[in-house]
Amino acid sequence: MDGALPMTVPMDGLPARVRIHEVGARDGLQNEQTVVPVEVKAEFVRRLAEAGLRTIEATSFVHPKWVPQLADAEQLFPLVSDLGGVRLPVLVPNERGLDRALALGAREVAVFASATESFARANLNRTVDEALAMFEPVVARAREEGLRVRGYLSMCFGDPWEGAVPVGQVVRVCRSLTDMGCDELSLGDTIGVATPGHVLALLTQLNQAGVTTDRLAVHFHDTYGQALSNTLAALRHGVGVVDASAGGLGGCPYAKSATGNLATEDLVWMLHGLGIETGVDLGRLVATSAWMADRLGRPSPSRTVRALAGTTPRQEQ
Amino acid sequence: MDGALPMTVPMDGLPARVRIHEVGARDGLQNEQTVVPVEVKAEFVRRLAEAGLRTIEATSFVHPKWVPQLADAEQLFPLVSDLGGVRLPVLVPNERGLDRALALGAREVAVFASATESFARANLNRTVDEALAMFEPVVARAREEGLRVRGYLSMCFGDPWEGAVPVGQVVRVCRSLTDMGCDELSLGDTIGVATPGHVLALLTQLNQAGVTTDRLAVHFHDTYGQALSNTLAALRHGVGVVDASAGGLGGCPYAKSATGNLATEDLVWMLHGLGIETGVDLGRLVATSAWMADRLGRPSPSRTVRALAGTTPRQEQ
Repeated sequence: MDGALPMTVPMDGLPARVRIHEVGARDGLQNEQTVVPVEVKAEFVRRLAEAGLRTIEATSFVHPKWVPQLADAEQLFPLVSDLGGVRLPVLVPNERGLDRALALGAREVAVFASATESFARANLNRTVDEALAMFEPVVARAREEGLRVRGYLSMCFGDPWEGAVPVGQVVRVCRSLTDMGCDELSLGDTIGVATPGHVLALLTQLNQAGVTTDRLAVHFHDTYGQALSNTLAALRHGVGVVDASAGGLGGCPYAKSATGNLATEDLVWMLHGLGIETGVDLGRLVATSAWMADRLGRPSPSRTVRALAGTTPRQEQ
Repeated sequence: MDGALPMTVPMDGLPARVRIHEVGARDGLQNEQTVVPVEVKAEFVRRLAEAGLRTIEATSFVHPKWVPQLADAEQLFPLVSDLGGVRLPVLVPNERGLDRALALGAREVAVFASATESFARANLNRTVDEALAMFEPVVARAREEGLRVRGYLSMCFGDPWEGAVPVGQVVRVCRSLTDMGCDELSLGDTIGVATPGHVLALLTQLNQAGVTTDRLAVHFHDTYGQALSNTLAALRHGVGVVDASAGGLGGCPYAKSATGNLATEDLVWMLHGLGIETGVDLGRLVATSAWMADRLGRPSPSRTVRALAGTTPRQEQ
């Protein structure tokens, strides 16, 4: 309390600690134009771990034809799998992807479902239910192998084709994912349109449908600048796992097509101001994102990175 | 509820209506590098009014030497003073400024105080108390003339020289401003470092010191991406007046020195999603900010403007 910023002033009714699920290396780089060499990716993941992040989604075992930016998953995973105490979930789209992840010794996997028919069709070329049927054996086998399984659900609040997405529709797909054995659900606002009352309504209806808050994570995008206020609403409801992307990777500040991932630094600023533990060293994280922005050849879209990178102000240590 | 975005889902405990105090034409343009012709400023203010904004801070009667961008206050004010039903407060730094504002028929004025000695010295070349003594006769005479008076208070949460600012220090200056007759106080997070618990602590201690919430406005900056979550915390406390800058004017996305005014569009997106009335037509406001960004020759820093400008998606009307 000696003038350091942000000043820490706790607020009632919030969790004491939040686990940040860092998605920059996977969701972030997957959406960047620049293809990053595997050594740089490995260094990025190591620096994220050194900055105190303890859940780092490393890569995706999707077919390289669909996501060329992550075609090096087989090369990358062994380079980072020795980081003590760091959880390294990987995305697996299907059984073939799970085979590849298991062969490398992955201990956590994630599947990626859609709450809307339009996006299921566009992204997976399936109906919502066909996609769920495809994931069912993947989740079952992962659990048999003792893996932890996360279910991503995209378009939980709005969809570019369908507009606003009814809460009940999202709840139904969430129930399917938990019923098939997902340990955790990440509720994605893929196009960034949610507002706090909508977030609270979804969380409340999920609880009423038997999906408890301790199994829920939130994944907000800053396309309309709403990610942190939505996060605050989720924290007040008791959510303790928040997805974010170091440096806001994946959301280019100059492109209209910005996906706008919530920047981990902006999240950490708020959480530390609220006295919520994250384990993250903000200065090291900012330095890591500034370093990665240099590799990508453009400034970081994170406001906190832009404000702090290269400075040595009276910020927290 | 036909798919329009943002989907409206109210949340308990928030005001039914928020008055947006639009600062783009004054606080915004004052901090832009480009000097904008007076006819363009007048057109900007008119378009803001047509978009539904009902309190538009028009300009500042500060000495042109200090703020050359607003040296045309005498020319601008008569061009916009006929907008029926729109409040047009102007900034007055001292008695001379008040004289100029009165001569033009201004009905609302604002003074600009600092919560910290460092910024009072840097901005006004006075101590905090000397600045307050300077404002006292300005506020008294404005009220004698029947004007409404707003007191801006800058550096309410942090200061670039002093770091975190003790809440008690801010409360003391707020009390001085209300005691001398300010009808409304705008609590400024000039460097954007506040977090929601800090906001709530200041509001609560102000109430305990006799400053009621109905006299309070909040003025957040997005330097660290925190403006909207802080706004949400203030709304929950009952604050019903929020300052914002159309298109995020005054916060250049490419400069490290970005002041980072909260963009009115990002605020409106959240408020409309929460079912809070603003009177603003978001589509017209986005078009106005996109038009102004063209005049300034650079993209808007507002995420909502960047997402919506030039598009005709399934957004609210």
